[in-house]
Amino acid sequence: MTIKEQAAKMKLDSTKLAAQSLEARNKALQAVADALTEQRDKIIEANQQDLEKAEKDGLAAPILKRLKFNESKLQDVVKGIRDLIELPDPLGKVQMKRELDSDLVLVRESSPIGVIGVIFESRPDAMVQISTLCLKSGNCAILKGGSEAARTNKVLFEIIHQAAVAAGMPEGCMMQAEAREEISELLACNESVDLLIPRGSNSFVQYIMSNTKIPVMGHADGICHIYADKELDIDKAVRVIIDSKTQYTAVCNAVETLLVHKEAAEKLLPALNEAFQEKNVEVRGTKEIRDIIDCEESVEEDFATEYLDLIISVKTVENIEEAIEHINRYGSHHTDCILTEDRSAMQQFMQYVDSAGVYCNCSTRFADGYRYGFGAEVGISTGKLHARGPVGLEGLCTYKYKLFGNGNIVEDYAAGRREFHFKDIQP
Amino acid sequence: MTIKEQAAKMKLDSTKLAAQSLEARNKALQAVADALTEQRDKIIEANQQDLEKAEKDGLAAPILKRLKFNESKLQDVVKGIRDLIELPDPLGKVQMKRELDSDLVLVRESSPIGVIGVIFESRPDAMVQISTLCLKSGNCAILKGGSEAARTNKVLFEIIHQAAVAAGMPEGCMMQAEAREEISELLACNESVDLLIPRGSNSFVQYIMSNTKIPVMGHADGICHIYADKELDIDKAVRVIIDSKTQYTAVCNAVETLLVHKEAAEKLLPALNEAFQEKNVEVRGTKEIRDIIDCEESVEEDFATEYLDLIISVKTVENIEEAIEHINRYGSHHTDCILTEDRSAMQQFMQYVDSAGVYCNCSTRFADGYRYGFGAEVGISTGKLHARGPVGLEGLCTYKYKLFGNGNIVEDYAAGRREFHFKDIQP
Repeated sequence: MTIKEQAAKMKLDSTKLAAQSLEARNKALQAVADALTEQRDKIIEANQQDLEKAEKDGLAAPILKRLKFNESKLQDVVKGIRDLIELPDPLGKVQMKRELDSDLVLVRESSPIGVIGVIFESRPDAMVQISTLCLKSGNCAILKGGSEAARTNKVLFEIIHQAAVAAGMPEGCMMQAEAREEISELLACNESVDLLIPRGSNSFVQYIMSNTKIPVMGHADGICHIYADKELDIDKAVRVIIDSKTQYTAVCNAVETLLVHKEAAEKLLPALNEAFQEKNVEVRGTKEIRDIIDCEESVEEDFATEYLDLIISVKTVENIEEAIEHINRYGSHHTDCILTEDRSAMQQFMQYVDSAGVYCNCSTRFADGYRYGFGAEVGISTGKLHARGPVGLEGLCTYKYKLFGNGNIVEDYAAGRREFHFKDIQP
Repeated sequence: MTIKEQAAKMKLDSTKLAAQSLEARNKALQAVADALTEQRDKIIEANQQDLEKAEKDGLAAPILKRLKFNESKLQDVVKGIRDLIELPDPLGKVQMKRELDSDLVLVRESSPIGVIGVIFESRPDAMVQISTLCLKSGNCAILKGGSEAARTNKVLFEIIHQAAVAAGMPEGCMMQAEAREEISELLACNESVDLLIPRGSNSFVQYIMSNTKIPVMGHADGICHIYADKELDIDKAVRVIIDSKTQYTAVCNAVETLLVHKEAAEKLLPALNEAFQEKNVEVRGTKEIRDIIDCEESVEEDFATEYLDLIISVKTVENIEEAIEHINRYGSHHTDCILTEDRSAMQQFMQYVDSAGVYCNCSTRFADGYRYGFGAEVGISTGKLHARGPVGLEGLCTYKYKLFGNGNIVEDYAAGRREFHFKDIQP
């Protein structure tokens, strides 16, 4: 069967997965966790082969690191599944219950999206995380992992799929796409696939968006900002900026640009620069910055760059309005933070900065589903439709309107024989 | 300025509209309603010119009817604005408030989407409805109406825009695109436009979806079904089927296909056919239907057709499972209804039919924002991302995460010096 035929079949079967009880879905997740633990040797062996090939092909060290799936990674994903089991059911939640008339009741209930295509990068843990998130939320998944992890992903997929089906999930609850050319087939499945989640480079996500009619959720990049306002606590500011830049650099929620109110520059920059030097952070500053500290010179392009590295661009601003405008213009609407002790500046920043996350006095690195208490995340969305920010189980759900009547017709209301009375009922 | 430059400017200005208080937005809506009333003659005169041109161009009667904007239409839209003013504020609603740690609080608040492009058909009332819905929800709007209504739309836009700005809304709160070639310019504005809402034919919506990276909300078509189960009340069934088919035929929530359980056919069809004949409905049935009543013969294609006319396709099914599968395969996931007195059949249908609206014993024509008590609607979405079903003010909003800290850094949690405790606080 082609991907298109398989996806069409999956679409029709997706309502069977959607109808599985929470108990049945959790039982399947438990079976998956057990099977992964039991078959650890097989997984680690396949991963060894992927690693050997990757080394032979001369892949870079960070890719090799992400590719590695050892005992400790296995324990992490198994713990992730056990945490997922503990999470409340995202399905069947009554979001609204309204009497339209005495014998006509409208109920809005959460339900799975249906068929989700996920295209992810070299980390094999993503295969486990995404397939189990989809199972918990009753969504069928088409999974396409990176080619470097082909052997590991194949083994992981087979273990997960078999365990889920043996525990009672429908055969078509998930499928794997393996060949690279299958991506373009998948992009054409707009009649069967309800959502695509691409995880990868900016250019890759842009390519996906340009070549499909299927809705896409994800983020292209993360140019996060910190704005240091004039009224600020220097110690707090240095601590937050250093954490935002250095706690983990190669991630979308690390800060890339620091904007400093001109009246705060003299007191903040010397202390900050010392901390940057300790952490080997390269500073690229505008002229005003270089008048105060010794650093590289920034160019316009720096402010539109996601470094994902120990580099930060720094500039001064005349006032908070300039900071907000800079962020809305150059940022990627991901996560942006103000450092201030002034309540009204904080409110202004949080109202006018148009980002998924607007923070005050805390690290941009908090932008993460786990840290928000969602238990798990499928990614971070910088789009504004559907889910925004870290996307957990709730972001993998839609809703359905159920209308319960007793022979009601619209003509009665159109002709004025009956009238609606809208009365919300506590669900 | 090109559309692209205007949209980029609008995007930066959109946060100013987003920050307007409910009082200010309602005051602007009131000013718009007053201005439309005062300048009624100018509007009706412009509409007269559009109508004359349309007649000269030989446009069909239904288009002429939709194009007409007279005193009664004016009163309708003005009443619509007054109703809109009464609706609660969709912005700034606290959807979640959670303590992540003793001094770290996460708040999720509803906010406008930003810049919305709406491309609509020949009805000039749409210009008023959509621009005022966007104002109420704090969204900037790029409005492109049908060319047949060019003069009416231009006058309406100018009145609305001037009144809104005079009442304090930012200059860039709305703009009009007039030329047809501006549509393709608009489709390329993915950096500035957050959402496109195309209203029009199936092929038009498909064209939009294929030619933009901007998320699209809308529905391509509406093939709605009614399934008459074996245990049914004949009178109720006939009433609901006739209303669903004939109360207003040229709309997406009218029923197009009737599926009849084989054990219900003998008792339902003769009574139903009589009612169909009274209303001049053409019946296209399968062989099993034609064995019971005299009607046209259906072909496979009928079941994939949105007639928007006094025609209905009818077939028998072996059981409820076959009905569900038919609906999920041929339907457009808009609105589908079961007629039954059997509670478990109802539950099965509502669980397994994958549509925005699943109904029991009531007309499919209820699928409408006004009838759901949303006060107003921007359209009906058959997609599953973001809003599904009738889209009211809530569907024009997204949310923002605000995180309030006191110098909190992620490294403290990564190093185990601090631990998250997630505690939801009643907003």
